[in-house]
Amino acid sequence: MGDPSAHSCFTTTHVAPSAVSHALQSSTFNGYAPTSGLPQTRRAIAEYLSRDLPYKLSMDDVFVTSGCTQAIDVALAMLARPGANILLPRPGFPIYELSASFRHIEVRYFDLLPEKGWMIDLGAVEALADQDTVAMVVINPGNPCGNVYSYQHLKEIAEAANRLKILVIADEVYGHLTFGSTPFVPMGVFGSTVPVLTLGSISKRWIVPGWRLGWFVTTDPCGTFKNHKVVERIKKYFDLLGGPATFIQAAVPQILEQTDEVFFKKTLNILKQTSNTCYDKIKEIPCLSCPHKPEGSMAVMVKLNLSLLEDISDDIDFCFKLAKEESVIILPGIAVGLKDWVRFTFAVDPMSLEEALGRVKSFCKRHGKQLQIY
Amino acid sequence: MGDPSAHSCFTTTHVAPSAVSHALQSSTFNGYAPTSGLPQTRRAIAEYLSRDLPYKLSMDDVFVTSGCTQAIDVALAMLARPGANILLPRPGFPIYELSASFRHIEVRYFDLLPEKGWMIDLGAVEALADQDTVAMVVINPGNPCGNVYSYQHLKEIAEAANRLKILVIADEVYGHLTFGSTPFVPMGVFGSTVPVLTLGSISKRWIVPGWRLGWFVTTDPCGTFKNHKVVERIKKYFDLLGGPATFIQAAVPQILEQTDEVFFKKTLNILKQTSNTCYDKIKEIPCLSCPHKPEGSMAVMVKLNLSLLEDISDDIDFCFKLAKEESVIILPGIAVGLKDWVRFTFAVDPMSLEEALGRVKSFCKRHGKQLQIY
Repeated sequence: MGDPSAHSCFTTTHVAPSAVSHALQSSTFNGYAPTSGLPQTRRAIAEYLSRDLPYKLSMDDVFVTSGCTQAIDVALAMLARPGANILLPRPGFPIYELSASFRHIEVRYFDLLPEKGWMIDLGAVEALADQDTVAMVVINPGNPCGNVYSYQHLKEIAEAANRLKILVIADEVYGHLTFGSTPFVPMGVFGSTVPVLTLGSISKRWIVPGWRLGWFVTTDPCGTFKNHKVVERIKKYFDLLGGPATFIQAAVPQILEQTDEVFFKKTLNILKQTSNTCYDKIKEIPCLSCPHKPEGSMAVMVKLNLSLLEDISDDIDFCFKLAKEESVIILPGIAVGLKDWVRFTFAVDPMSLEEALGRVKSFCKRHGKQLQIY
Repeated sequence: MGDPSAHSCFTTTHVAPSAVSHALQSSTFNGYAPTSGLPQTRRAIAEYLSRDLPYKLSMDDVFVTSGCTQAIDVALAMLARPGANILLPRPGFPIYELSASFRHIEVRYFDLLPEKGWMIDLGAVEALADQDTVAMVVINPGNPCGNVYSYQHLKEIAEAANRLKILVIADEVYGHLTFGSTPFVPMGVFGSTVPVLTLGSISKRWIVPGWRLGWFVTTDPCGTFKNHKVVERIKKYFDLLGGPATFIQAAVPQILEQTDEVFFKKTLNILKQTSNTCYDKIKEIPCLSCPHKPEGSMAVMVKLNLSLLEDISDDIDFCFKLAKEESVIILPGIAVGLKDWVRFTFAVDPMSLEEALGRVKSFCKRHGKQLQIY
């Protein structure tokens, strides 16, 4: 699990704990919040997201969740019905599959294409969808691939979803965490083409994943979700959830409004540097290849060339032996749907990352096939 | 919704915000906690609950939740299977029914008997249960009735559940909040007779409901839940939930261990006083009757005698007119399953409570039937 907060170079802005501390010390936020979230929190999130949209969200579009994880589960729980299926990206984020299994939703995978910057294979999406398909999931910036989708590709996705009459779950938990040439465009920009459920949180951009403050947002200017029954059902579901602490919610308006650009730039600069290090060092290792230089999020997918390795049977074997021999932990690709790939997270202190990649190199050299002399 | 934190006489102990603030300022708890909860938090909750049990719980028995609400939903989600039914008390807490409806569990109600101190009608429980019954819910101290079950009654409940081969969901969110002659006994005392799922939180006893810190605990010395598959399923479900903020979890050991008895006694003294006021003032109002003096929790059920009222059609009508005419808000009994009853919460500042009950009295007098002179 990538958690940048474990590294001292990734520290949240002073604005965040100070706002939370202020709310806590005021003693006015020890009581229950409305289960959909405090009004001022919902309003602040609506305004924050509206900055990047061609229309304004209202507080009624926003439901506050315990991190993006809970937002994912809400989205799937709300879409579940007998026989429903959902289209998920491969590679993807395993919580979607887990949530679908608990909600009895069938899962169908479409591929992300490594040679095309992990773009969605929209042909596959069209082939997979049928009348029981309720939604497709788009994770952008991409986890675990580190890709960032262009405006044009997002438009094509929206148009495809519109043709298929399915909605888009836009997982933007890494929203704004881009450091390449492609800027972040929220899926909600195409909310008039297709109804979008936007999921996000302050976890990644503010580097406070343990604060469990996320959102589930109906980004839908045409009002498809504004049906009274749908809204009532969502509200009732939120009555069951618990949700984030009231005093953390109370701090959100200040956090979203008062965080300095300098803080964001600092994080992006480090991620740019560490992602470059990761990409460059991996290039030097013959049995590893990285088809696409990361431009966003905090992770990248790397392909194993097992034919160049002596005694490694697959990605799990690679990761277990690497952990045992070098105390370096990376994720086997099978965990995110791609066998014989591995996921590197580069949200790591630069010194540790260099050291770790050096160890990966030694490991690969040690396990590399000896040159055969004919 | 009863929320004592709205009243200045119910303020949490200084230990609680100070522990949270310390964890927040340390910057070491901004990252993810394990989804079942921080180990030190699970251990502290296990120790806290074990104080009142004839055996020791371990940290593996404890899962940390976003308040007791999420613990309820976890319990029901874990018990859901096609055709399952669950036995709920009437009156009860509406979140159980709501959660059951989302989890497709059939709900069957057994009565609590007002004339017997709201004891469970165990004959009804035995008549309702069948091979598809997965559990019965016991809320003690009682919400919304303010009753506290004796050791003997809890033993009878455990024995009945054992005979019926169903487990007991013990909702002890008001645990230790007793101020009458019956002491609080946790259901887990009978964990060897019947497997118990204990649900609780720091919300009520520490008066911080907005902090969303609760627990789902397998109180089960015989290890019925310790089956590998069951444990794995619970753990996987927790991966979806979000859960409470890490830095709040980190404060829990200190909160549970260092809170002074003086703080608890202060809360209980106020609740004893306000519950007495409530009971005594209601006795003076002819159209209201309270069958059982509250001994615990923060609410009490009161019966309406509509035949003594001129123009009130039912409990909802009573509450609406009372709110409109006197700005006093009480809950219609139908919301907790008892038509033509109302629920008073006495976790209210004593002065406001006296004022409110005075207004209820005027309201009842104004709407009372005129004496007929024959």
